[in-house]
Formats: sequence, C-alpha cells, structure tokens
Amino acid sequence: MRMVDVIQKKRDGEALSKEEIEFFVDGYTDGSIRDYQASAFLMATYFSDMNAEEQGYLTMAMANSGDQIDLSAIEGIKVDKHSTGGVGDTTTLILAPLVAACGVPVAKMSGRGLGHTGGTLDKLEAIEGFHVEITEKEFVKQVNDLKLAVIGQSGNLTPADKKLYALRDVTATVDSIPLIASSIMSKKIAAGADAIVLDVKTGDGAFMKTPEDAEELARSMVAIGNEVGRHTIAVISDMSQPLGFAIGNALEVKEAIETLKGTGPDDLTELCLVLGSKMLIAGGKAKDTNDARSQLKRVIEDGSALELFGQFLQAQGGNADIVKNPDLLPNAAFQIEVKSTTTGFITKMEADEIGVAAMLLGAGRATKEDDIDLAVGIVLKKKIGDSVKSGETLAIVHSNQPEIVKTESMLLKHIHISQHKPKRPKLIHKILD
Amino acid sequence: MRMVDVIQKKRDGEALSKEEIEFFVDGYTDGSIRDYQASAFLMATYFSDMNAEEQGYLTMAMANSGDQIDLSAIEGIKVDKHSTGGVGDTTTLILAPLVAACGVPVAKMSGRGLGHTGGTLDKLEAIEGFHVEITEKEFVKQVNDLKLAVIGQSGNLTPADKKLYALRDVTATVDSIPLIASSIMSKKIAAGADAIVLDVKTGDGAFMKTPEDAEELARSMVAIGNEVGRHTIAVISDMSQPLGFAIGNALEVKEAIETLKGTGPDDLTELCLVLGSKMLIAGGKAKDTNDARSQLKRVIEDGSALELFGQFLQAQGGNADIVKNPDLLPNAAFQIEVKSTTTGFITKMEADEIGVAAMLLGAGRATKEDDIDLAVGIVLKKKIGDSVKSGETLAIVHSNQPEIVKTESMLLKHIHISQHKPKRPKLIHKILD
Repeated sequence: MRMVDVIQKKRDGEALSKEEIEFFVDGYTDGSIRDYQASAFLMATYFSDMNAEEQGYLTMAMANSGDQIDLSAIEGIKVDKHSTGGVGDTTTLILAPLVAACGVPVAKMSGRGLGHTGGTLDKLEAIEGFHVEITEKEFVKQVNDLKLAVIGQSGNLTPADKKLYALRDVTATVDSIPLIASSIMSKKIAAGADAIVLDVKTGDGAFMKTPEDAEELARSMVAIGNEVGRHTIAVISDMSQPLGFAIGNALEVKEAIETLKGTGPDDLTELCLVLGSKMLIAGGKAKDTNDARSQLKRVIEDGSALELFGQFLQAQGGNADIVKNPDLLPNAAFQIEVKSTTTGFITKMEADEIGVAAMLLGAGRATKEDDIDLAVGIVLKKKIGDSVKSGETLAIVHSNQPEIVKTESMLLKHIHISQHKPKRPKLIHKILD
Repeated sequence: MRMVDVIQKKRDGEALSKEEIEFFVDGYTDGSIRDYQASAFLMATYFSDMNAEEQGYLTMAMANSGDQIDLSAIEGIKVDKHSTGGVGDTTTLILAPLVAACGVPVAKMSGRGLGHTGGTLDKLEAIEGFHVEITEKEFVKQVNDLKLAVIGQSGNLTPADKKLYALRDVTATVDSIPLIASSIMSKKIAAGADAIVLDVKTGDGAFMKTPEDAEELARSMVAIGNEVGRHTIAVISDMSQPLGFAIGNALEVKEAIETLKGTGPDDLTELCLVLGSKMLIAGGKAKDTNDARSQLKRVIEDGSALELFGQFLQAQGGNADIVKNPDLLPNAAFQIEVKSTTTGFITKMEADEIGVAAMLLGAGRATKEDDIDLAVGIVLKKKIGDSVKSGETLAIVHSNQPEIVKTESMLLKHIHISQHKPKRPKLIHKILD
C-alpha cells in the first residue's frame, strides 16, 4: 500500500477501507508516514469528508495507537461524559457525584485544559490536598467502593491523536467534523468508556457556533459510537451565554456545591438533570427519563450526592470540609462590582469574550506552560432576558489585583443591553439518542 | 504573516494576495515553511482553485525563486514553445529550424524526460557528436548567428517549482490545473521566453484526457501569460493516437528530417504548420496565419529549413551528414513486422499503451537513472481510419532483441480494428490566442 494512493482516494471522495485507515494511522504513529503526507490527507478529508464507517475505523485506529485503560474490574456499565467545551461549564463536577450516587460507576480520567478556565483537574486542585496521582489499581478499587474516582491523564494514550492534533493545528485542518469527532471518541474509548454521553455546545462561546454545525458533529459522534459498539448519546446545549453564573476555578467548585445542594443556577441544574438522565439510562440504572430525573432529584434532595462528593474528595486526599464550608476554597483578594451604565434588558452575553475576560484575570491558560490563578474569575449577576437598571450590578469580578479596568470594559462591551425584552435562549437544542 | 492563516484562506476559497503567495513560495524555497504546511496548502489549492491573478503571482514567484536566463543580448522576440507531452511528439525538432529559417530566434533550453521516449535532448544526442554543454555566451552568439541553438538545463532554475513538484508527486496534488499551469509557465519565463506557444495535448496519450480538461489548462496558462506580460497562445491538439508514425529517439529524428523535407506524416506536418504559424506571429515575423503558413511552406520547399538544421547540428558538434543520410543514426539490430490478424478499419490506437510498448523496448525512462536505447522504437504503418487486411503490417518494431512477444501482443491489443469505418480524429481541437 502507498500513502499517496490513500490520499488520492480520499481526495477523489471515495470511502477508505479499514486497512487503508489503519495503514495511515499506524504509519503516522510509527513515523513511517511523514507529516507532509499526513497533512495532505487531513486537508483532503476536510474537503471530501468521511462516512460513519470510515470515522469508526479512524476512531478505533487512534484508540488502539497507544495504551488503553482496562476498566473491566469495575462492576457495571462505565458511562463517560464529554463536553465540547464552553464558558463556565462546571457540569462534570456536579454530574460525577450525582450519577454515582444513583449507582452508575464514574471512572473519570481527566486532563488540564487550555482555555478560559482550567480543566476539571485544575478545578479539583482548588481543593486543598486533593490529588489525582493515584495508581490504576487504587483507581479501580475506589470506583468499586465509592462509585467515583478521578485520575489524571497518564501513560501513552492515543498518541496518534496527539500527533495528528498538533499537525492539524498548523495546517488549518482543525475544524473538520470527521477529524474532531474521531479525536474525541478515540480518547473516550481509550479511557475505557462502555457508553458515552456527549454535551455538544453551540453558540458564541462554543467551538460549534451554529446549532446546525453542532448537530452535524453530534451526529458524527453518535454514528461512530454505533459503528464501534459504544452506546453514545448526544445532547446539543446552549452556549450563547456562559453556563451558570460562575467563571473561574474555585468559583465554579462553589457553584457545583450549590447545585449539588439544589440551590444552583437554573440552567446549570437543568443541564445536569438532562445529561445525568442520559447517563443513568445508558448505565442501565433508570428505565426512562422520568425515572432518571426523579432519582437524580432525590439524591440532591436527600443530600446523598453532596455527601458522596465529600467522600470522594476525602478518598483522594482533599479537604472535604469545603463541602460544608466553601469559603475554605481559595478566595481572591478583591471582589469588585461591575455596574450597568444603562437600563433595559440583557439581550446578549458574548460567552467567548466573557471567557477571555476571565482568562485575562488569570483563570485560564493560553499555553501549556501558563500558571492558573485558582481564586480569580467572574460571577455574573444577570443572564439573557433579565432586566437591569442603570447602576445595578452586572457581575462581580474576583481579582487578585485591585485594578480591573480592562476586565470591566470587556464585560460592559460584551454584555449587551437593549430596551426590548428578548426571548431567553433555549437551553437544550436537541437530543440524539 | 503565518502560513497557517494563508492555508486557511485558500482552504476557505478566498483569493490570496501577491504578498501571501510570495511569502509561501519564498518561505518554502528557503526552508522556513515546512513540507507539511506546503502539502496542506497544495491540497487546499487542489480543491479551492486559484484565479488568474493568483496563478500569475505563483508563476512569477517560482520563476524568481532561482536563476533566470538573460536572453536580452539576442535580437528579436524570443518565442518558446512547450508541449504538455504525448507519444511520438517530434515537433520541437521540426519547429525549431522551421521558424528559425523564417527569422524567429530560437533559444531553446531543453531537458531530458521521463516517459515513453526521451526528451528533445535525448533525441538530439542520437546524432553523433552533438552536445548541449555550451556556455550561455556561446549559446547567445549562436542564436544571433544562426537563429537557433539548444542548451541543456543547467544552473538553479525555478528551485521552488522543483521542490513543489517533488512534494506534489507524493501527496496526490499533481493534477491541479493552477499548479500545473504555474509550473509550466514559471519554467518558460525563467528560461527567458518573451512569448510562449503552448501545445496542449488531449486524449488517451496525454496528461489531459478530455478536450475540456485540456482547454481548462490552456486557458489557465494563457491567462497567466496575460497576467505576467508574456504573449501566450495555446493550441489544443489531438493525442488520441500517436503523432506521426515514429515512436523512439533516432526514429523520431528521422521522421523530423522527413518532415523538414516536406515528406513527413500529414498530422505531424500540419501540427508543425499550426504551431509554427503562431510562433511566427508571436515573433512578429508574420502578419497573419496565411502569411505565416506560406513562409513556413516556402522554407520547407526551398530546403532552407533543412539546411539550417544541418548548420545547427554542426555548430554544436553533431554530424550534419545525417540530414542527407539518416541511416547514419543509430539503427536497431532487428526490424520486426507486427501483422494484423483481422481485416477492417483501425478505430482506436491507444497512444499511452503504445508508448509503454516503446518504453519496454528501451526507448524511454521510468526513472531518472534509467539508460535509454536511442535506436529502438516503433514505426506505425497505419493510423485511425485506415483500412487494414489480415496479414498486413500494422507496425515495424525496431528492437535490439530478436524476441518481441510482449511488444507485439501489446500492439495487437491496443490497436483496435472493427468493421465500421470510424471518423478520423480532429487534429486541432481549439486555438486560444
């Protein structure tokens, strides 16, 4: 087989065989196929697309390119959840104890992230003493004992995806649906998921700006799941404004605790119930959505989800007292109110720009080497559709510097206020299951 | 400027600026832009195309990437001719003395070729003593004295094109019209052409299989010529069967001499008159086609074209006696007739397969390192539309081995005979000027 022929076949819009896709992935991973052929192949794929079968082959070839986590010693169906990323997205911290409390084992491998705030790992590390450097054996034991554990990404997981991602980044081939879908799915599968619930975000603050694009990506991933025998469900959810109120690592942990207590923001709570229901159904613990929602609400109301969250933190060395006393989490030196200069209704909150404002405070990383300030961030006081008076607080900026001119001006610029009351954005655009 | 942004712009179908194209070509030539970005760019160009302006920028950037031949010391308009390549294409050997005899200076830089037979250089080297290793000064002087000289490709001409071509070859980006067109035009311009007459072949034996594709390529090259201020004319000519009768190096030289005497094959003669007319007009030596054709016919009839050919050979060390006595050219040890097994009409002569049959005899090179046998080849006795009887000779194989089973079976397979008389293929499909 010659790589040039595989490139040409894809370029000409033909479907590739399993052997051809494995030839490419294996060859690229071991270096026998070079960057310049890989990038031509990626660009040909950008234009010619891939069908569900091909995407399945690509996903499995990447999943098989390195180590794979063996979760077979964990009882039950391991359901993983993945979000395509947004601003103020704390769902993982809430969902994990929520569904675990309902009996679905959550064996979560999590990474740090680039972006407006840190990843789930960074957020958990806002809790004193918490660590994810546990052995695979301890990890499996803890999931069997508590139904919940989080381990840091380690080992040589999906090296093909890592290498391809780096290449895509410099060759303008990042935003290709089959490449995005197979990248996400390969990582979940290598991390041992039996079933996968996807939260595909759409809107300003998401990678997929339109519901149509989000649905296309969601459909691709669900199709891949079907191809490779992993039950996959996708929820397309709104990211036209930040999710919840908090943007920032410790701030989002606090909001997660509020939500586990039943007093969190409406949108964040509802999204967790929707995603959690799908996880319970996929995990075989609920027969339908009604059943699932009532179980989830029960573990919130009876405090068992929050209790499990505390036990989980303790098991991994974290200070479980933060559950009862969230003020033990890192606090910023300054809390500064940003006030509206006009009266009207909030019509638009540009999630991506508000995310950048939080990142500029130090809440997120632009490059892998950047340090994160876990305490800083933004807490919104308003959401789209809310009325606001001139002089009323729009947001509170948690900063470790007294001077927040740039953050304030960004917030005032990107929170739009008008005289006409807008429709509140729909939280759930579509569910594919 | 970042190359990833240039790739993305082309990927998204936008037109690139002169600066962006020069950034790419210069960066790729000096190594600051790497193969993997170049190949992604080439594939994006394959899909997104380039407009005439962009192709002009690309052509000039490649022409300027290395040495350029300075022909300013030669009087008159230097008209170069380029063929996109076919089987049995001896036109350069005929056209050069033909138009030179009419007063158009022919300062030809020529290369060896891969393919069914050698390039013009190989054919000329079938003539004892002939050499192309002359200095640029001798070259210019000879053109001024005789109106005709041929020099071998030397120096660092269009290094960007060389590097890009090698990359296209392994990344399935060879057959892209803007890339083919700019590659051809850049070489002609670097070689000093003031005006360019293109012979774009179409049919089985050509790179462009359909007249539509050939026309698209021709239009691109003419548009580039207009963009960069080089008068460019394209003739789209037939390559559904080999041109003339001879395929092979010495055999084609003999056929060229026949044609210069006025006794060559009809199709080859006519094509030389068409291309030659355009060269005379572009060179400012004829006012229209009628004038040009009568001048060309005159220098054939009065023997001056053939005489000039002899003088040119002598000037570059070749044995000019071959003009009067072509049998002094290398002869193959065996001349074996291939006879028809049926009676009917020739309906199809698959030029590419007949070319391969000649290459298998040793007439051409598959790789740069291959040696060429200048004596061997095939002389056809029939063309499409001719009648043939069972047992009648279809072709004479000139071989240095007595056994030609494979060549014979290829010829019998790819020369199609049927009971219905077909239309003879049109020689000139279109002229763009």
